[in-house]
Amino acid sequence: MITLLTDFGFSDSYVGVMKGVISSICPKAKVVDICHEVAPQSVEEAAFLLMTSYAYFPRGAIHCVVVDPGVGSARKIVLVHTRRYFFLAPDNGVLSWALSKEDVTDIYQVTNDRFFLKPVSRTFHGRDIFAPVAASLESGIQPEKFGKLVTHIHRISFPEVKLKPGALLGQVIYVDRFGNLITNIHESYVRKLKHKGAIVGVKGKKAPVVFHSYSSVRQGALSALVGSTGFLEIAKNQGSAARSLNAGRGTRVEVKIEDFKMKNVGERRKAIGVS
Amino acid sequence: MITLLTDFGFSDSYVGVMKGVISSICPKAKVVDICHEVAPQSVEEAAFLLMTSYAYFPRGAIHCVVVDPGVGSARKIVLVHTRRYFFLAPDNGVLSWALSKEDVTDIYQVTNDRFFLKPVSRTFHGRDIFAPVAASLESGIQPEKFGKLVTHIHRISFPEVKLKPGALLGQVIYVDRFGNLITNIHESYVRKLKHKGAIVGVKGKKAPVVFHSYSSVRQGALSALVGSTGFLEIAKNQGSAARSLNAGRGTRVEVKIEDFKMKNVGERRKAIGVS
Amino acid sequence: MITLLTDFGFSDSYVGVMKGVISSICPKAKVVDICHEVAPQSVEEAAFLLMTSYAYFPRGAIHCVVVDPGVGSARKIVLVHTRRYFFLAPDNGVLSWALSKEDVTDIYQVTNDRFFLKPVSRTFHGRDIFAPVAASLESGIQPEKFGKLVTHIHRISFPEVKLKPGALLGQVIYVDRFGNLITNIHESYVRKLKHKGAIVGVKGKKAPVVFHSYSSVRQGALSALVGSTGFLEIAKNQGSAARSLNAGRGTRVEVKIEDFKMKNVGERRKAIGVS
Repeated sequence: MITLLTDFGFSDSYVGVMKGVISSICPKAKVVDICHEVAPQSVEEAAFLLMTSYAYFPRGAIHCVVVDPGVGSARKIVLVHTRRYFFLAPDNGVLSWALSKEDVTDIYQVTNDRFFLKPVSRTFHGRDIFAPVAASLESGIQPEKFGKLVTHIHRISFPEVKLKPGALLGQVIYVDRFGNLITNIHESYVRKLKHKGAIVGVKGKKAPVVFHSYSSVRQGALSALVGSTGFLEIAKNQGSAARSLNAGRGTRVEVKIEDFKMKNVGERRKAIGVS
Repeated sequence: MITLLTDFGFSDSYVGVMKGVISSICPKAKVVDICHEVAPQSVEEAAFLLMTSYAYFPRGAIHCVVVDPGVGSARKIVLVHTRRYFFLAPDNGVLSWALSKEDVTDIYQVTNDRFFLKPVSRTFHGRDIFAPVAASLESGIQPEKFGKLVTHIHRISFPEVKLKPGALLGQVIYVDRFGNLITNIHESYVRKLKHKGAIVGVKGKKAPVVFHSYSSVRQGALSALVGSTGFLEIAKNQGSAARSLNAGRGTRVEVKIEDFKMKNVGERRKAIGVS
Repeated sequence: MITLLTDFGFSDSYVGVMKGVISSICPKAKVVDICHEVAPQSVEEAAFLLMTSYAYFPRGAIHCVVVDPGVGSARKIVLVHTRRYFFLAPDNGVLSWALSKEDVTDIYQVTNDRFFLKPVSRTFHGRDIFAPVAASLESGIQPEKFGKLVTHIHRISFPEVKLKPGALLGQVIYVDRFGNLITNIHESYVRKLKHKGAIVGVKGKKAPVVFHSYSSVRQGALSALVGSTGFLEIAKNQGSAARSLNAGRGTRVEVKIEDFKMKNVGERRKAIGVS
């Protein structure tokens, strides 16, 4: 199986053409789209989507990522073999966050143009390099045929959570279609806060940390919960938190223990809109 | 075959991850997207798309619908077996309109977490419950393994057409990409009006009921015709009726016999823009 | 393999339903989407996407194009057999630019309703004619079964490049997701300009013709280069040329030899923003 993660969108034929090239080289290849609507040239957004998606695919899958602001420049292309998967991408850091959870065995720099579609264009390596290399690998070509072993790849760092007395400082790292604000605060931090009435502050508003569903709070209210990616996310029940807070990637988020001056449970619940 | 109908959109990796999970459990499963751009949490829009699409798929297909505003709450999940298909969905009424045309044999409440992906998140049952259950079913698991038989499911009613002397009162129930306004008025009503010069009134404008194509009227003119779903729809030849009328789901629509005071055919034709 | 190129978008179930019909008739058929986001009823945009995509698919592929402003009218449907492919489309010129590069062997007018889904709707021939005909062809039905041989099809002309002394006059024929302005000026024209310091004028701005990547110029600067389609395109490094120039399909573009009054290379480079 080959998965595709790109910023090519669906309004052009770029993705379709990649699939045509793959089928021409390896007719039996099964291709699955992870996402093609990554914000144009946003390496970090792609890194996040890859990190939170790749492990749901069958062992042996070839994850092919083409978010590539440096296409046509001297940037390298890498093929990374881990115990469970292959990853093929421009060497711009897009694999960093996924690989931090994987056991890397080999890294190859892809240079053998015997496997490329010629002439190689300056602007569409998805078609001319990534698709044919992924298809050739899927068809049984050994990874070492694509280029020499290298010892390291470009990494980008994952935004760190800052710990302050009684508070965590984080940020929004991804906004999904529903307007949920996904933060860099992993559930491992949040678990400790359980039963303590934690509150998230974002853009001057407060959202209670809840441990059930989006609908734990009344319709239209904000809440913060550990989402399906394992990170704390801020959601608006049946609405868009991003829109109503005018928040996005980079927006600062603070998790605090609730103000216990409001001792009365009913009062506290009312203040934060928990149903 | 497994079909997917969700409100997950394409800007995230939610759909891709569901396909990864399905392939991991049932590698041979063929997955086809019905639609993923249902308006977020619009059960009625999904119900309409399912009703007008499901029957075009091969017998035995598993229709998996994930439009699920109550995800993570106590809402149930149902697996419905009909003579021709399986339907898997949250028990929120989304299957109602499709099932009204099907011969239901069994309904199961899906509870057996042996088939779920664990830990089950609170926010993404598409990945953790719907995808693995559909894939397990496709791989040959008997439907009764997923939970106990139940006798009924939640239903939502289809908006009724009102009959007045000489007129039908209906409403827009779906707007498609082209801006065609699809109403709840079924062709069985419209057939009777043939050859009678029926007119649709919508937002103070008039559209003639035509019995041929969108292009029966001049470019830019409105017409009403029975569309591919079997319902009367209001269209603008080479334009968007929704945009030019500022109309949408819920907009009222009235079908009347034309005003015969304009006896002259040419005059009538001119008035309503028929070419 | 069947490819699909339509203006159906993804917000409805039109594409999903076509795939359901195809699978019902030919379960083994592999279907690949070229693009479904063609601007509604834009025959020229579809013609461009087909021309620049079809040849990347395996020999024998059936390219099924449904951009069909005349659906339900008297317009014909054609099945074109070339040495390498089949093309199935309404006879509105959408195949013109692709076929100009192909070796056509036979053209059939599709009329045999034995292969149609009945009743044939007036508005969705994608479902009722194109999908079942493509699937029947893929399942082994001979092309002559679908209708009689015809000798010609409707053609639309490709916008011509005008040659003036020292300049080429062209136009934008396609804008992609990244805002790249793809012109009708083929690389065969551009190659002659190499090493001559050519400049593209568009909307009163200047973009240097470069022979490397988008990133040959500084961030935010415009450049013109031969893109992956083989045509000259105007791009903004890490931005959208379409948006910043407020340009689109039909915008005029002029390629000139640079003003040599600025003799100083550094000065010239600075003027045009080359890094």
